Amino acid sequence: MVREKVVHYTQVEKERVENANGTWIRWLISERDGAPNFAMRLFEVEPGGHIPAHKHPWEHEIFVLEGEGRIRIGDNNYVVKPGYVVFIPPDIVHEYWNTGKTFLKFICVIPLKSRK
Amino acid sequence: MVREKVVHYTQVEKERVENANGTWIRWLISERDGAPNFAMRLFEVEPGGHIPAHKHPWEHEIFVLEGEGRIRIGDNNYVVKPGYVVFIPPDIVHEYWNTGKTFLKFICVIPLKSRK
Repeated sequence: MVREKVVHYTQVEKERVENANGTWIRWLISERDGAPNFAMRLFEVEPGGHIPAHKHPWEHEIFVLEGEGRIRIGDNNYVVKPGYVVFIPPDIVHEYWNTGKTFLKFICVIPLKSRK
Repeated sequence: MVREKVVHYTQVEKERVENANGTWIRWLISERDGAPNFAMRLFEVEPGGHIPAHKHPWEHEIFVLEGEGRIRIGDNNYVVKPGYVVFIPPDIVHEYWNTGKTFLKFICVIPLKSRK
């Protein structure tokens, strides 16, 4: 039976993101918790950190929690700060930079089928 | 063609939640934006506000941004503060109270099929 989960995000293990510089991920809610449709992750990018350009056939729904960054989506660049919401549709190239002096932290939700 | 979306959450319209006290919702990312699988909403509950007990056959994935609250999930009660992650599986009764002196704000993601 699937149970509820209530934790502070710092209680969820932090893993280094491969193919990125100075970036960590916490899988806050995922299949491991019995989530049926989508996973909520928290990214932490250190000052100067960078997630290189990539694309994939699933979307991102993002909410910026802390720090300052730049996100490139296709041909467009956006400055993001706490409280910013970002929707990246499937199949569009995207890339992230921490442009601030503190950690850039954001929530990023993806469909679970993307992991299969 | 589905386009990206980058906005501050305060730029998204705030609507009063029916059947709740002192509660507003912003549909940050939804079908209107071309989201294919799930919707990201932001709830704002005023001090003393309350979302009464209810249940439905879809899950919630929640991240608490501001304020203090209590969430009942089934028979269990949880105190939540900024940085708390809450997974509410489908078909479990849940209920929310703002127990603090400022707005309780949280992200809540749901599958889009739940709106059909």
